[in-house]
Amino acid sequence: MRNKDFGVRDGEVAIELPEQPDAGLYFIGRIRTPWKERKDCPKNGRESDAVCTVELDPRWRDGLKDVETCSHLVLFYWMDKAPRNLVRQVPGHYGAQRGTFALRSPARPNPIAMSVVRLLNLEGARLSVIGLDCLDGTPLIDIKPYFASTDSVPEAVVGWHKRKD
Amino acid sequence: MRNKDFGVRDGEVAIELPEQPDAGLYFIGRIRTPWKERKDCPKNGRESDAVCTVELDPRWRDGLKDVETCSHLVLFYWMDKAPRNLVRQVPGHYGAQRGTFALRSPARPNPIAMSVVRLLNLEGARLSVIGLDCLDGTPLIDIKPYFASTDSVPEAVVGWHKRKD
Repeated sequence: MRNKDFGVRDGEVAIELPEQPDAGLYFIGRIRTPWKERKDCPKNGRESDAVCTVELDPRWRDGLKDVETCSHLVLFYWMDKAPRNLVRQVPGHYGAQRGTFALRSPARPNPIAMSVVRLLNLEGARLSVIGLDCLDGTPLIDIKPYFASTDSVPEAVVGWHKRKD
Repeated sequence: MRNKDFGVRDGEVAIELPEQPDAGLYFIGRIRTPWKERKDCPKNGRESDAVCTVELDPRWRDGLKDVETCSHLVLFYWMDKAPRNLVRQVPGHYGAQRGTFALRSPARPNPIAMSVVRLLNLEGARLSVIGLDCLDGTPLIDIKPYFASTDSVPEAVVGWHKRKD
């Protein structure tokens, strides 16, 4: 699962993974983005205005009723190329060792990424959205409505993070 | 997997699940809350000020470095009692049929719940947080730092949702 793009760097710490998974996930669709290699992906979903397409498997299509009334959605997707055994990481763009749970790196025990996206259009089982950062073909795990009342915390702080802008 | 609390109601639509899961999840800890039955759980994480405890498995403990600098975290947890085959649901407190992906119901193809929580304390592999709504003993899936820059959208709207307060 490791390669040049997703390998262990100096200063990173890996642990032994459990022998068995505890639960199973279904891939419920695929995400189509303009990015074919990791180096092309934006650092996070707010860095790009690219319109991406979420193709839901037809099996789940009836679950989209009322989704068109949502201005924003939370998408979960599976970062299938990321190692799962890193507990300390040295992200290239920060250069310091951090704990995995203090990072949004795809490398984590369960490599589920989450992005808040703006919904532009819903047609059949296809959603057009803005706010993604993942590779083309990334497996979709979940679509949730974004509720500002529970999900929006404008004053939240990540203390270790020095803003560069 | 279905029982009185998590069964199919009139007007709900179930589909045939895929035969095989596509990926495996590790449970990385347990969440301790005051709620032993579903009827006791708050409707969402903002409805309660109860302090809950996240017990991370010691295997992953080194991943908590720098987490103490975060004011808020996103927790993912596994709603292991929820059915996975519902695409249309009639939530008891709303009374109308909605698509699963327009709801935050635990019943969904991949029953991963997400809550934004306020971090009160981190000691060893235990985190004290406010903002959870789940049953005591719920399996933990992930801990992420909450970045207001990408995760906070105060103006987001869920059109079908009529506020009652």
